Amino acid sequence: MSEPLSTGAVIGILGGGQLGRMLSVAASRLGFRSHIYEPGANPPAGQVADQVTTAAYDDRAALARFAESVDVVTYEFENIPTRALDLLETHRPIRPGREALRISQDRLTEKTFLRKLGLTTAPFAGIVDMGDLKAALKQIGTPAILKTRRLGYDGKGQARLLRPEDAANALIAMDGAPAVLEGFVDFSHEVSVIAARGLTGEVACFDPGENVHRDGILRTTTVPAKLTPAQRTDAILLAANILNALDYVGVLGVELFVTPQGLVVNEIAPRVHNSGHWTQNGCAVDQFEQHIRAIAGWPLGGGQRHADVVMENLIGDDMDRVPQLARDPDTAIHLYGKADVKPGRKMGHVNRIKRSV
Amino acid sequence: MSEPLSTGAVIGILGGGQLGRMLSVAASRLGFRSHIYEPGANPPAGQVADQVTTAAYDDRAALARFAESVDVVTYEFENIPTRALDLLETHRPIRPGREALRISQDRLTEKTFLRKLGLTTAPFAGIVDMGDLKAALKQIGTPAILKTRRLGYDGKGQARLLRPEDAANALIAMDGAPAVLEGFVDFSHEVSVIAARGLTGEVACFDPGENVHRDGILRTTTVPAKLTPAQRTDAILLAANILNALDYVGVLGVELFVTPQGLVVNEIAPRVHNSGHWTQNGCAVDQFEQHIRAIAGWPLGGGQRHADVVMENLIGDDMDRVPQLARDPDTAIHLYGKADVKPGRKMGHVNRIKRSV
Repeated sequence: MSEPLSTGAVIGILGGGQLGRMLSVAASRLGFRSHIYEPGANPPAGQVADQVTTAAYDDRAALARFAESVDVVTYEFENIPTRALDLLETHRPIRPGREALRISQDRLTEKTFLRKLGLTTAPFAGIVDMGDLKAALKQIGTPAILKTRRLGYDGKGQARLLRPEDAANALIAMDGAPAVLEGFVDFSHEVSVIAARGLTGEVACFDPGENVHRDGILRTTTVPAKLTPAQRTDAILLAANILNALDYVGVLGVELFVTPQGLVVNEIAPRVHNSGHWTQNGCAVDQFEQHIRAIAGWPLGGGQRHADVVMENLIGDDMDRVPQLARDPDTAIHLYGKADVKPGRKMGHVNRIKRSV
Repeated sequence: MSEPLSTGAVIGILGGGQLGRMLSVAASRLGFRSHIYEPGANPPAGQVADQVTTAAYDDRAALARFAESVDVVTYEFENIPTRALDLLETHRPIRPGREALRISQDRLTEKTFLRKLGLTTAPFAGIVDMGDLKAALKQIGTPAILKTRRLGYDGKGQARLLRPEDAANALIAMDGAPAVLEGFVDFSHEVSVIAARGLTGEVACFDPGENVHRDGILRTTTVPAKLTPAQRTDAILLAANILNALDYVGVLGVELFVTPQGLVVNEIAPRVHNSGHWTQNGCAVDQFEQHIRAIAGWPLGGGQRHADVVMENLIGDDMDRVPQLARDPDTAIHLYGKADVKPGRKMGHVNRIKRSV
């Protein structure tokens, strides 16, 4: 398939969480239907999707049926089992493609890839055993952070090393998994670029947003970010560099540390990204629709914003604040339809719009 | 029910067209689920709703099951059979309420209601037979327009009278239905106010939009409309007057003719309105979410806009223009997921955003 998808085509989405939910709504705006594939029951995305398959990622019959029912396969998370992807790919195109997944599923592979592109990352080293870790600590020093190579998100599977003596406990926290040691970067703030590349190679970036994390979870993204014009250009060029190197199709999130020496790439995510949620209320084409446009072979939105926005995540019992937030006339509420409030769980977000008319 | 609905509550929507579809998406943003009731198969709204009931409006068992499965009943069109409403109302609240439906289902009742509120309408008279019509033509003159009292929309069930001699043919076009004769209003342009009233009586209005029709179908709405500050205030006050008189809960569309003598009310619609689609890309809370907030007992959005917008309907083979429209970076596309393109059928709309940053 290289022709643009027409109205009525079906977008297959692996994962039924809030990102799949917002992708499904965006697909509907372009006249597409969505089919969600999700192992868990009652996925948030299912409430706004045309079809839902509830099945495991090793259910080969369900995967095949799903793939045959859709026109293109995409995903809301990068840690999809390889064998599921192998099977899906025999039926339908997967966008973004396998190379982006292979690289972003493994922190060591990702950092090596970024370095080879000439980009700056934190100092890092692959760690299998204590010998590796001791050698790496000599090179990188402390403080440092040890992370499993695979399946890490939102601060899980990570251990901080404030002193070399923390090495043993940090290694135990990895539970035998291959890991990567990362040195700390002395940065003033973090920004991210939400970038997209279309089927015919065109690239469009949203304005970089400035991110604030707490307890390892994104709390706010503010647009515009504090960046010099040169930094802004750098951020966009390096994102385009990554997209082109991966022959990427879809939206990619690039997290960057801002330092006096320049921008340092923290990590990339081959999907729509929490720090791009502000685009829902600031842009004609938001990141979710941008992703759908890209994988459907449509022209990309330009990424221009028509309003400044501050996005704030609603985490756990932040939900108690919703009645109050609903009273603010410049606040757009986006809840995810999750039945249970749990500490640390992303329940929704709000976009505060700075009016200019 | 007078407490605000909580996340997870179910909004029941009568009608599965594009308005039900966009109401369903808006409900999802507040964490609600939607249940669509629609006699036709594969309704556009069903693609983004949690549940769909496909059943006729005289299927009492299906109506009862639907009502029991939802927390509140609303609708996307005003011509719902009275007996269906009678049944639904024994199970769950219907919002907006019955009085608004009773009045807006009948052009004569509606115009009489508006006059009693002290508002200006076109000259009108109820018509049953040729005697009525001849007498009314003497009062009102020509040109005039004869419309069936009930079930009229988008120019159907209407006949123009350019001369008194057109009376016979016009009456034949009514096919025996009770009708209303309306005199022509010499207006410079038409505007509409999308107004909302909450469960506790608060009122909020969006900025009036300026409408252009062609062949009896809305083509574009431009915000801001050409209005003097006094006219703008008049428009908003009269909309609030109507809402309060109806003890209304939800969004109401009010179409107004602008004349040198002041504003003339053309018609009201007790629902979200095509001329309010611009709010999707110009306001923190759009008309669809505003309606859901109102019927769910939530605080209303303020109605402020953060961008100027021109909405254009995509009608019939306007769909051929979508690939071109998708290339305009300031154009937001909203398609309805309708399988078949037909002349005069509303297939989608676009919102062109005037950027200000």
